[in-house]
Amino acid sequence: MTTVNAYAAIKEGQPLEPFTYELGDIGAHEVDVDIDYCGICHSDLSLLDNEWQNAKYPLVPGHEIVGKVRALGANVSHLKVGQTVGVGWYSSSCMHCQQCMGGDHNLCNKAQAIIVGRHGGFADKVRASAEWVSPLPEGVSPESAGPLFCGGITVFNPIVQLDIKPTDRVGVIGIGGLGHMALQFLNAWGCHVTAFTSSESKTEEAKAMGAHEVVASSDPKALKPLAGKFDAIISTVNVPLNWDSYVMALAPKGRLHTVGAVLESFGVSNGFMLIGGQKSVSGSPLGSPATVHSMLEFCARHDIAPKVESFKLSEVNKAIDHLRNGSPRYRIVLDCRA
Amino acid sequence: MTTVNAYAAIKEGQPLEPFTYELGDIGAHEVDVDIDYCGICHSDLSLLDNEWQNAKYPLVPGHEIVGKVRALGANVSHLKVGQTVGVGWYSSSCMHCQQCMGGDHNLCNKAQAIIVGRHGGFADKVRASAEWVSPLPEGVSPESAGPLFCGGITVFNPIVQLDIKPTDRVGVIGIGGLGHMALQFLNAWGCHVTAFTSSESKTEEAKAMGAHEVVASSDPKALKPLAGKFDAIISTVNVPLNWDSYVMALAPKGRLHTVGAVLESFGVSNGFMLIGGQKSVSGSPLGSPATVHSMLEFCARHDIAPKVESFKLSEVNKAIDHLRNGSPRYRIVLDCRA
Repeated sequence: MTTVNAYAAIKEGQPLEPFTYELGDIGAHEVDVDIDYCGICHSDLSLLDNEWQNAKYPLVPGHEIVGKVRALGANVSHLKVGQTVGVGWYSSSCMHCQQCMGGDHNLCNKAQAIIVGRHGGFADKVRASAEWVSPLPEGVSPESAGPLFCGGITVFNPIVQLDIKPTDRVGVIGIGGLGHMALQFLNAWGCHVTAFTSSESKTEEAKAMGAHEVVASSDPKALKPLAGKFDAIISTVNVPLNWDSYVMALAPKGRLHTVGAVLESFGVSNGFMLIGGQKSVSGSPLGSPATVHSMLEFCARHDIAPKVESFKLSEVNKAIDHLRNGSPRYRIVLDCRA
Repeated sequence: MTTVNAYAAIKEGQPLEPFTYELGDIGAHEVDVDIDYCGICHSDLSLLDNEWQNAKYPLVPGHEIVGKVRALGANVSHLKVGQTVGVGWYSSSCMHCQQCMGGDHNLCNKAQAIIVGRHGGFADKVRASAEWVSPLPEGVSPESAGPLFCGGITVFNPIVQLDIKPTDRVGVIGIGGLGHMALQFLNAWGCHVTAFTSSESKTEEAKAMGAHEVVASSDPKALKPLAGKFDAIISTVNVPLNWDSYVMALAPKGRLHTVGAVLESFGVSNGFMLIGGQKSVSGSPLGSPATVHSMLEFCARHDIAPKVESFKLSEVNKAIDHLRNGSPRYRIVLDCRA
């Protein structure tokens, strides 16, 4: 028996408190990880607040995990005890459906979210199925890598899925936890990068992170002169915007793609807006293990890392308040080391 | 000077009447065509009714033209006088923008619609720029080919643009002028084809035209068991449907694509509906000259033809009434021969 020392919300809306649970015998395809760091993501708050009506309590949040392999199931031969690894939103996929067999494990209908009905990374240990445990390559710092496994892959994946070319002009809406990574990825990808932000104070930082241009998204007039300019626009915000105006900013064959959990309608007010220039609106969740692997190599090659603020795991409620207040500039990571 | 004998609406809402106009000197890149046949498309009605607020009068409709080359501009060397050709929605593109140079002449910002501010094919002659004059290959019957140049290419183009595979399961919404061609194309493409129709009486005909399954689109319950099934759904209707239910019918990475001129909103009621399965909604207009060429060869190879009813050009008002009443089962063609 392995005891996990975690922090959990016992009921909806309650602060986290120390919570222990037991891991049963390890499955043949499973991996146990000693957690060093765990990022805090807005989705952790959505679960804590049961915003998506799928939370189960007690709830141990945390799905941006970096640590070291503690134990391996009998059939896991490609990882080693002590190896530094990351684990993100998913803890397992079915491994036999059309999506899993096609390399799209993140689109598996039975993909298990690590913090829905099981326990996540605000803890000293976590268990996951081997397919979702990704070795951290040389050159990726464990201290800041956690957010790559949710926020990072969420914005890296569309670059791959939309087949964005280095010759493309790409916009990023929202320069926060996800957007600041998107800027870095797209700049290193070779694209012309435009940041859309409602925070004027982020202009210089956005440029330092890779934006060639910064546009004030709060200014309705700012989008007009950009009509027909972008091959793709990736939205990282979870609030409804005037999507028509962003679709108008797309070049022919342009794509408006959301990775932000918009609970409101997403589309255009008139079908002609898509028909005329052969445009599309789309969305995607996270990315496959193979894409996570590509992302990590890309990060190492281009020295890309999330910008993080650090809290100790014991300060988790303070860190959550910090995120709720919108205070963190980019991303928070909990230090879970003993 | 060349006199064109046409039928025109002198003002919005008026019936067509005989109308003549003069073609000036032919441009170096232009082609004059003696018209044999011209299809009637719902877009002709939209222009006659000024539904899109872009009509100019007198208005000679007609943009599904088949005829023989009458005269060639000085620089047109790839066509021959007397050759059978087709002309569709566009009469010219700029030929130098990124879209034209990239082979997407239909997405050219300056592409000229043949019946907007100039005169179309309800006539004995028409003039167009050479890039939009497509030779009819052996094996494509001139009598029924007209509708290929608007309705046909409009549904063939998404198959190419969405990179639909013969292994895909594809749905077609609306089995009318456009949809009945989509069924034929997709069946010959090798796909599993499902027709969504509100006309129960079309079930057997849809199957004869290539549908493997026919679903009653008027039955809200009929879509539920199809959840997650389709790689692509092409909508040919111009009325708002419950798009959410069609997006739910898409498989992961599925695309809902409209070619119908929906003037209402097009999208999903909740961003998660696209995010979860990495789905998209999109649209497109007609197709490029190169895609028209591919379509015509594909039609010849697979014996694909629009199903048409024929009227004489002098009966054009009767034919238009027939279309307005929703009476034609599929497509109407005017016989414009003297």
